[in-house]
Amino acid sequence: MIKTITLNSRPVGKPQLTDFKFVSEEMPKIDAGEILLKTSYISVDPYLRGRMNEGKSYIAPFELHKPINSGGVAEIVESNHPSFSKGDFVSGFLEWKEYQKSTGEGLLKITPSKTPLSAYLGILGMTGFTAYLGLTEIGAPKKGETIVVSGAAGAVGSVVGQVGKILGCRVVGIAGSEEKVEMLKKTFGFDEAINYNTTTNITEAIAAACPNGVDIYFDNVGGSISDGVLANVNHFARVVLCGSISVYNETSTPTGPRVEALLIKNSALMQGFTIGDYTKKLPEAMEQLSKWLMDGKLTFTETIVEGFDNVPQAFMDLFEGKNKGKMIVKI
Amino acid sequence: MIKTITLNSRPVGKPQLTDFKFVSEEMPKIDAGEILLKTSYISVDPYLRGRMNEGKSYIAPFELHKPINSGGVAEIVESNHPSFSKGDFVSGFLEWKEYQKSTGEGLLKITPSKTPLSAYLGILGMTGFTAYLGLTEIGAPKKGETIVVSGAAGAVGSVVGQVGKILGCRVVGIAGSEEKVEMLKKTFGFDEAINYNTTTNITEAIAAACPNGVDIYFDNVGGSISDGVLANVNHFARVVLCGSISVYNETSTPTGPRVEALLIKNSALMQGFTIGDYTKKLPEAMEQLSKWLMDGKLTFTETIVEGFDNVPQAFMDLFEGKNKGKMIVKI
Repeated sequence: MIKTITLNSRPVGKPQLTDFKFVSEEMPKIDAGEILLKTSYISVDPYLRGRMNEGKSYIAPFELHKPINSGGVAEIVESNHPSFSKGDFVSGFLEWKEYQKSTGEGLLKITPSKTPLSAYLGILGMTGFTAYLGLTEIGAPKKGETIVVSGAAGAVGSVVGQVGKILGCRVVGIAGSEEKVEMLKKTFGFDEAINYNTTTNITEAIAAACPNGVDIYFDNVGGSISDGVLANVNHFARVVLCGSISVYNETSTPTGPRVEALLIKNSALMQGFTIGDYTKKLPEAMEQLSKWLMDGKLTFTETIVEGFDNVPQAFMDLFEGKNKGKMIVKI
Repeated sequence: MIKTITLNSRPVGKPQLTDFKFVSEEMPKIDAGEILLKTSYISVDPYLRGRMNEGKSYIAPFELHKPINSGGVAEIVESNHPSFSKGDFVSGFLEWKEYQKSTGEGLLKITPSKTPLSAYLGILGMTGFTAYLGLTEIGAPKKGETIVVSGAAGAVGSVVGQVGKILGCRVVGIAGSEEKVEMLKKTFGFDEAINYNTTTNITEAIAAACPNGVDIYFDNVGGSISDGVLANVNHFARVVLCGSISVYNETSTPTGPRVEALLIKNSALMQGFTIGDYTKKLPEAMEQLSKWLMDGKLTFTETIVEGFDNVPQAFMDLFEGKNKGKMIVKI
């Protein structure tokens, strides 16, 4: 028997352990043209919270009492498929199961090398692509501009900051602990970093850290942190809306200062970014990020939790900011 | 002696008559290279409210106890300038004075023809250019898309709707009276129009008027009307932020539902539009609008108030929605 994790109930506010259910099922048997996958790594990401709600979003909601799925890496342990061999590794969307079968559709073969397999869920996976394409396609940074990143110590934010530095920008990060602030400056090369938990006035802190104002705001967080950044944007500023982790668990629509007058005053742009809109650009992102990684210009941090049983808790910990960089569960 | 209107005090909330002061001064005398202008028309516009506040905006604030200025049309009654002759008409930024002198810098010679002079403050002036360039440059309409316009019966909104129809879109307007709603449909060819003063649920009214959702929202108003429109935007929607008349008189930052999650969910764009950023495109706008006007594809409505003494009241009436189309004072 193998274990799978289903959505037991739609979370109200913060997800609880009881919203998930562990179910036992038979080890799957594969037919002709199918492969059997043994899950190696499961990616837990803030955006999954949205899929746990009912109703339309940019991606379909999870069904109740069905397995949850997210990005993952798996080893092929049996193959009846001409293009996949036993021992190969693949990445793609996987159900939260210890083992599962597949036709191989949508899976990408990956080669274990100097880069650990888990990197294909982070810097060389959707989070890295999101950082690179969100910044370049909407942010359109020019040398010498100032970029502010919220959720800077997260999987996406830490890549945004590094890419910003490579492209010649001043980069200021916002994160939730002194340890993260140190990491942003020492490990990821941010010019400045702000701990929002010990800063009483984000607006003034951003003004001090950005003497030439803010040209690009890459937002993973939303809420009052964004209010402080937006108060400092320059004429023609670009705001990349990548995530709103601060409000994902809200049960009613959050309110805040209206942004219209501020955007008009500064001829500023604000645009939602979803990686699903940029599938044609993924090869470019993979090539560029791989090159920078090999050249030693990019580094990454992962928070790896061990054990299939800990997948729900690892997901819940995202909302407490317990991860540094990409949060991954090793099975 | 001639009359001029100065800013007597910075309005708090809605402007009052006492915020303006009529001052008498000598008839100006012109030197070599100068012209004497007799004001024919003064344009009053919502954006002037922002210039009456202190502090940075996209355009410098008015100085206290100095004449206010805005778009205007004037007749040259004396000329010591080789390029201008007595009897010529010009448009440009003029001080709120019965007569003023000028070096001619920034003034555009206009030719009285079938088009009335006042049109150079409206459909063939900054408001027409704002409508055309805001819609085409940020809205980027494609044939068959749905455009919603707030403040649709105003100077900018009525042109946006007509241009949208010429470009093959479905156009829905929002305005504040039954008379305006009728005018939008009958005079300006809008497909549908909504009276926000008699509609209890804007979200549902927009949903009913836009069966295929909203692709472009051209916003002149902001506030709760926008909340109702934004709830109906499609994937890849574009929101042109042109004005926020509903909040110009607020004394503290207005609050409302946060838009970030909604923009992310729909990969939608929201961008502030200021005509000052598009000076290179003004000839294109003038050429296109003139052509459509001559071809009978565009029409326009003006609310013309008579008398220099009524300039402040005409400006204040904008915030009560008393204008249909461009509000102009004939001197």
